Amino acid sequence: MHDDIKKRIRTIPHWPRKGVMFRDITTLINDAGGLRASCDRLHDHYRHMQIDAIAGIESRGFTFGCVLAYLMNKGFVLLRKPGKLPAKTVSQEYKLEYGTDSIEMHEDAIRPGDRVLIVDDLLATGGTMRAACTLVEKLGGKVVGCAFVVELPELGGRKALAGYDVFSLVEFEGE
Amino acid sequence: MHDDIKKRIRTIPHWPRKGVMFRDITTLINDAGGLRASCDRLHDHYRHMQIDAIAGIESRGFTFGCVLAYLMNKGFVLLRKPGKLPAKTVSQEYKLEYGTDSIEMHEDAIRPGDRVLIVDDLLATGGTMRAACTLVEKLGGKVVGCAFVVELPELGGRKALAGYDVFSLVEFEGE
Repeated sequence: MHDDIKKRIRTIPHWPRKGVMFRDITTLINDAGGLRASCDRLHDHYRHMQIDAIAGIESRGFTFGCVLAYLMNKGFVLLRKPGKLPAKTVSQEYKLEYGTDSIEMHEDAIRPGDRVLIVDDLLATGGTMRAACTLVEKLGGKVVGCAFVVELPELGGRKALAGYDVFSLVEFEGE
Repeated sequence: MHDDIKKRIRTIPHWPRKGVMFRDITTLINDAGGLRASCDRLHDHYRHMQIDAIAGIESRGFTFGCVLAYLMNKGFVLLRKPGKLPAKTVSQEYKLEYGTDSIEMHEDAIRPGDRVLIVDDLLATGGTMRAACTLVEKLGGKVVGCAFVVELPELGGRKALAGYDVFSLVEFEGE
């Protein structure tokens, strides 16, 4: 457990709604040492893995994900909310607590056979990441890892991502 | 002019609406060399400047901006659309072609006196960046630069940002 990272993550009680303890990574990345430590440790974990492309989930996944792509000298793929990508996309729906949402990816963003690492800031129920994995697979890619800075184990994200290689830097229980 | 960067930017005609030639940086950053070249050249331009923090505008500004923050060993600040930041924010409205929009920043994201570089992917009319500069100044910061990968000179963004140091890597005319 990386306490120097964990201590820089701020908890906002009751946001975005009552009962939720929101883990805010903005205070981590506002700090030069916090940004560097979190990116370097993700890099340390994946540097010897064979990876062809790194994908980040909109929009906090774009921060850590793009730094990781730069450090590993790989291309960076945007996984975006609907209607944001200008060229031809593939789309994947996923369930929310109430209703559904979906994410999109340019269909030429990866090539069949590409080994793809997907990055987001936080693993909660895993629904968005699960949809992201499905998108990569729709395009013939192989998901070689799901990387997070923060994990909330109580919400069961690892179970939702069974079969995938899941890695996170720090965990928060309901504290 | 950096032709190796420019040639990797895709043009999507008539997106998001008829008559607009959309300059799509996803093809630039999907390419490992394109991502590296664009981040390295922004870094080259700013590496000797005295900067305390780097801010990125949601959401494509989070990609180049966060890499630049990492490379310069500075903290990274998120400038986000309304309602996305969990703690206390300051907000600035700006005009769109029809109506208005606004951007927000955590009020503790910078300190008074901080020298801040603001990063976005593309300079069009400059409205969003102008609002971002005002936000930084509301918090007592000094905007030391406005950095873009792409500039569309015909849309007059530099005029809207008069008084600020504006830098871009490549320009597109109506071609």
